[in-house]
Amino acid sequence: MSINNGIEARISELLEEVKQKRPLVHHITNYVTVNDCANAVLAIGGSPVMADDTGEVRDIVSISSALVLNIGTLNEKTIESMIIAGKRANELGIPVVFDPVGAGATRLRDKTSNRIIKEIKLAVIRGNMSEIKAISGITSSTRGVDASEEDMLSPDNLDYGKSIASALSHRLDCTVAITGPVDIVAGKDGVCFIENGDKMLSMITGSGCVCTSLIAVYCGVTSNYLDAAVAGVITMGLAGEMARESMVENNAGSGAFRVRLIDSLSCITAKDIQKRGRVRCHES
Amino acid sequence: MSINNGIEARISELLEEVKQKRPLVHHITNYVTVNDCANAVLAIGGSPVMADDTGEVRDIVSISSALVLNIGTLNEKTIESMIIAGKRANELGIPVVFDPVGAGATRLRDKTSNRIIKEIKLAVIRGNMSEIKAISGITSSTRGVDASEEDMLSPDNLDYGKSIASALSHRLDCTVAITGPVDIVAGKDGVCFIENGDKMLSMITGSGCVCTSLIAVYCGVTSNYLDAAVAGVITMGLAGEMARESMVENNAGSGAFRVRLIDSLSCITAKDIQKRGRVRCHES
Amino acid sequence: MSINNGIEARISELLEEVKQKRPLVHHITNYVTVNDCANAVLAIGGSPVMADDTGEVRDIVSISSALVLNIGTLNEKTIESMIIAGKRANELGIPVVFDPVGAGATRLRDKTSNRIIKEIKLAVIRGNMSEIKAISGITSSTRGVDASEEDMLSPDNLDYGKSIASALSHRLDCTVAITGPVDIVAGKDGVCFIENGDKMLSMITGSGCVCTSLIAVYCGVTSNYLDAAVAGVITMGLAGEMARESMVENNAGSGAFRVRLIDSLSCITAKDIQKRGRVRCHES
Repeated sequence: MSINNGIEARISELLEEVKQKRPLVHHITNYVTVNDCANAVLAIGGSPVMADDTGEVRDIVSISSALVLNIGTLNEKTIESMIIAGKRANELGIPVVFDPVGAGATRLRDKTSNRIIKEIKLAVIRGNMSEIKAISGITSSTRGVDASEEDMLSPDNLDYGKSIASALSHRLDCTVAITGPVDIVAGKDGVCFIENGDKMLSMITGSGCVCTSLIAVYCGVTSNYLDAAVAGVITMGLAGEMARESMVENNAGSGAFRVRLIDSLSCITAKDIQKRGRVRCHES
Repeated sequence: MSINNGIEARISELLEEVKQKRPLVHHITNYVTVNDCANAVLAIGGSPVMADDTGEVRDIVSISSALVLNIGTLNEKTIESMIIAGKRANELGIPVVFDPVGAGATRLRDKTSNRIIKEIKLAVIRGNMSEIKAISGITSSTRGVDASEEDMLSPDNLDYGKSIASALSHRLDCTVAITGPVDIVAGKDGVCFIENGDKMLSMITGSGCVCTSLIAVYCGVTSNYLDAAVAGVITMGLAGEMARESMVENNAGSGAFRVRLIDSLSCITAKDIQKRGRVRCHES
Repeated sequence: MSINNGIEARISELLEEVKQKRPLVHHITNYVTVNDCANAVLAIGGSPVMADDTGEVRDIVSISSALVLNIGTLNEKTIESMIIAGKRANELGIPVVFDPVGAGATRLRDKTSNRIIKEIKLAVIRGNMSEIKAISGITSSTRGVDASEEDMLSPDNLDYGKSIASALSHRLDCTVAITGPVDIVAGKDGVCFIENGDKMLSMITGSGCVCTSLIAVYCGVTSNYLDAAVAGVITMGLAGEMARESMVENNAGSGAFRVRLIDSLSCITAKDIQKRGRVRCHES
């Protein structure tokens, strides 16, 4: 199946499948945006479960359709849980989606990211440009959990972003998504560029984490992880656009935007994706 | 006092008392929905305090009017804190409300739930049907933290639900609330069925946890825990109905619903409960 | 520079600087209101980062412009992280803002607060009257994380509040902010009284924590911490007023207020502060 042809149609179908199968997505994630992730997963039609004690993550992941590992507020204990859950997911063929929040900002995050990519077979990695560069071993300036100014993906550095994403995808044999003003998703069959989104997504916390969770929801209903990653990225971007469009009242700001984003995720249809998804793919 | 007669009136009065006494409710709870629980408790007129370190839970519970134990994201440390706080609450006669989130999904949750019901005298247990079955030792299919499809309470399986709730209530000498499309509350004096609610409550995370917190608020102002549990369940259901009714704009979804739910909790009056509460009770 | 003259103008300029420099604010904070703090910091123009593992807080604080220590849900591990991060911030000259949530409610909170003020040089402490009294070693009644009724700052006890704030400021050589219906900020050059705000701020969780985070954002762009504290307190109060004013629909309550509060933080301008800030300062 060529990735060029009809990816919007395939992704629309994935959304239908999500709503029908309601995939259970196990999250080991940070305490900052965890509520947003849970509500976003529910809004799109999935079923979230958050559990991080080493004593139970094997049990939880075993009944799940996908696993999210998000190191946003990692600690000694949850790092162990991530490794245990990831290995169990690998044994059972359950897709693992990794969000290397803040990679590059601390040695602990770099060490943990390296351990995860070494010990666990990943289906998808999603991060901003600074994080993906850190994972790739490329030194970069960093601003905590946000991409640095110079690392913001834009039409001007798409080729560079594409080469980074493709190289990492090739090295780890997994799909790599770099999100920003323009998004890049690279898999072994090719590379896609997505241009949905709204700049207000960068004014709220959790846009990245939620995008990762959506990708995991889609991974729960297909083994084509490039499709799943593109689906998650388009869904997030489109929800951002719809949220912005619905902000008609005076003085609406990032508080209202955040509410409308969840509204949009709960209202978005397969038709919306087919009609408004802005994706171009190139075979590799 | 018969539970049949005038329960709506009694519960209306409880709401007035909550607003007057502002009971402090100590929560040892999960990091997913903790903010919703805190805002819901404030909205209804109570005062929330969240604290889970073993070194301070005895102090916190001692100044509280009720204690919530919620195992949504339990871990080794917080399990110990729950036991310490629960025992101290028992010594002081402070009501303990238990929410066995995800019981049945992992051995750790089952083991912890069993330890809690064995070592601590509970005022109320609130869970969905799958969780209450697990607590009762009945094998059930489970879907993480949500009730399984077959376990969804409906007019068709109310008798079965009633027998489960009553048996557990009798065994543990505490009030048992099973929530779902229809809610059942069983105590030693009888059983109540509540039909308030809206199906959107199942599309956001935290509906169950918030209901548990509301029950605890009411337990903070009465020693009739069956009344308190019915009050919490009606308040939650009614807030759901009012939230749905106020969603008049286009594209409102689960984001807006969640905001309106807190709005409704902060606006709900004793009169609303008396007028719109849908509860039938039977003496046992 | 006299603190009397033109403080509104100076604070307006600080807001402009925040939007230009986007200071990174490292938080070691509680899991109840952490998401609100992150979104508030983003809304006003700063950049939040939350990290609490002992293995990485030195790295995170080193790239930050300010550090928040908030003991809302402290535990053994995060207390150590606070000490490590605070000392590192001191070495690097990075301002530390301390929020002694619930001080006075438990021995652990008192002990921890004492350790923090002893081992770390603070730029600003912000708390309610009960908390600041506890920090000052004055016995007080306490209601968990809220100020007790008798400790509510009002025009009647402003002089008492001022003496407490000034004494603590003098003793610790830091700026002290007591927030309540009226707010007091005391520094070595004088004392300011701020009368912005809305009583709905006390009906949602996190108003205090968010105010502390805003103070830290301002500390990230000036070494005049009294100005920074006044700026944070005015910004919070004014956002509360604007949030209340925009609640025009029926049945709006604390859910809507919370959304509008973030909206207001993201819309507030230097002009709003200059025009509507209600602050009086006295040199000491």
